[in-house]
Amino acid sequence: MKGLWLENNQLELRDNLPQPIPPEGEALVRVLRAGICNTDLELIKGYYPYKGILGHEFVGVVEEGPQSLLNQRVVGEINASCGECRFCRRQQPTHCENRTVLGIVNRDGAFAQYLTLPIGNLHRVPDGVSTDVATFTEPIAAALEIQEQVRVHPDDKVLVVGDGKLGQLIAQTLALTGCDILAIGHHREKLALLEARGIKVGYPDVVQTRTFDLSVECTGNPEGFRIACQALRPRGTLVLKSTYAGLLTFDASSLVVDEITLMGSRCGPFAPALELLAQNKVNVNPLIQKSYALTEGLTGFEEAKQRGSLKILLDMEI
Amino acid sequence: MKGLWLENNQLELRDNLPQPIPPEGEALVRVLRAGICNTDLELIKGYYPYKGILGHEFVGVVEEGPQSLLNQRVVGEINASCGECRFCRRQQPTHCENRTVLGIVNRDGAFAQYLTLPIGNLHRVPDGVSTDVATFTEPIAAALEIQEQVRVHPDDKVLVVGDGKLGQLIAQTLALTGCDILAIGHHREKLALLEARGIKVGYPDVVQTRTFDLSVECTGNPEGFRIACQALRPRGTLVLKSTYAGLLTFDASSLVVDEITLMGSRCGPFAPALELLAQNKVNVNPLIQKSYALTEGLTGFEEAKQRGSLKILLDMEI
Repeated sequence: MKGLWLENNQLELRDNLPQPIPPEGEALVRVLRAGICNTDLELIKGYYPYKGILGHEFVGVVEEGPQSLLNQRVVGEINASCGECRFCRRQQPTHCENRTVLGIVNRDGAFAQYLTLPIGNLHRVPDGVSTDVATFTEPIAAALEIQEQVRVHPDDKVLVVGDGKLGQLIAQTLALTGCDILAIGHHREKLALLEARGIKVGYPDVVQTRTFDLSVECTGNPEGFRIACQALRPRGTLVLKSTYAGLLTFDASSLVVDEITLMGSRCGPFAPALELLAQNKVNVNPLIQKSYALTEGLTGFEEAKQRGSLKILLDMEI
Repeated sequence: MKGLWLENNQLELRDNLPQPIPPEGEALVRVLRAGICNTDLELIKGYYPYKGILGHEFVGVVEEGPQSLLNQRVVGEINASCGECRFCRRQQPTHCENRTVLGIVNRDGAFAQYLTLPIGNLHRVPDGVSTDVATFTEPIAAALEIQEQVRVHPDDKVLVVGDGKLGQLIAQTLALTGCDILAIGHHREKLALLEARGIKVGYPDVVQTRTFDLSVECTGNPEGFRIACQALRPRGTLVLKSTYAGLLTFDASSLVVDEITLMGSRCGPFAPALELLAQNKVNVNPLIQKSYALTEGLTGFEEAKQRGSLKILLDMEI
């Protein structure tokens, strides 16, 4: 089968990859659509050593699996857990010690014609949700993870730093809590997308320091981290949602004096993410920049790498 | 009156300081005993610009104030708050925007014959608690702040990094929760003090990585921070209890991937600290290294600066 293979920081289109055979407990999924995520770009840069088919945001159709899912459109949680380690036993499968992660850790990913995943990882896509839209389930789930970790109150002042793909979804999902939210970034047209959803937006210089209860850093750069820190009131919480290339330096003393909480946040719950899409409460359509055929995937990656680009989809149906 | 005055990173004994006159709402306290804290040493080094009488851990006798406190031994919360700002209104007086802090921010401290503090900051010392012992109220309160911020469960695995003055009090107070605690440090004799309290101890090389639910960093150095980080299981919490000279560098990506929480922690509640001392549940006596008369205070500071020194008290009664 065809797929985008990553090896030694080099992504290439291969057309002789073996079609995967689902092991017991897993389903065979024919991929329909997959989205390029910043983590994919980081993996190419070598953020984490990975060799295999890239891609983890996808929608597919189950070709082999349980009757209930057969021929259904599905999305899939990306962490395949062992079910037995101490983290699985404490209901934290996304932190399973023996996990593989779709297109990220020891498990071939979604930029291919087929993939396999444990049956339990799959969620049926509601009929009313288009395939393009449903590829956003994974990043929306990641956005919702923040609300699994921090209780957001309607009277909280919340700052989202970064107007990129992830920042957009985080701002949209946090806005649903009714909190007093401000999203900042450098791109007028991206900020306009959020403004159209009724979200207050601005350039970074509008941020008042020491006023926000919660700030979410979605840029992955030290300047975004600095802004997110300084925006917080004492006892505020900063959620780190992006992975960072290299080390981050910060003033630990001010963290102590102001009793700031810094919280890393990763994968989140799929069911409520699909629910939000089904209810049309998150609008992802304006975030789709372009679709490419799998065979044009490398061109798609070149476009995704451009500063300021929005979501690039790979379409396995064309 | 006599006092230790800090100015331009220089601490000196002065004997012509004006005796303070308590403003409305404040009491005049004759200081009996005061402890030298690492924050005092940091202030001398210039960690924060402060000019005035140093010192914030004290026991004194109220000479002017309300009838109920007159001639009573008291300890005092160090943050004097305005009662009106947004933090005071949300019951966070230790984060008051307009606060002065005894011997730290715009308020003369305890290394003198007299001090003043708002009446509401004062707590009577129970009769059964000696004056020497009661000087530990402030750092014990700071140790208890951790439990105000994090719910510690009896089955939690907890690591305390650092066997110094603060680490000792933190280990002792956390051990009272019944959690599975390990305290580590470099000083055999200090670790022995904790071992005598039934607390597991060891050198840093005994720490198993990725196993602790909670780690508390009490060393104020980057190596301690690194150990406290690596000890945590995914979704674990690291409490930063020390101020750091300069900036701290860390791997933010692993914080995100493992969804670690980093939490700064500062001043805590006095009432339960006094209660623990009254019930003899924390043993501070072995932590007292030596007492000096106020007039010998500079010599006391020289001893406190020595690596590995325990608590140096200044005794205003001798």
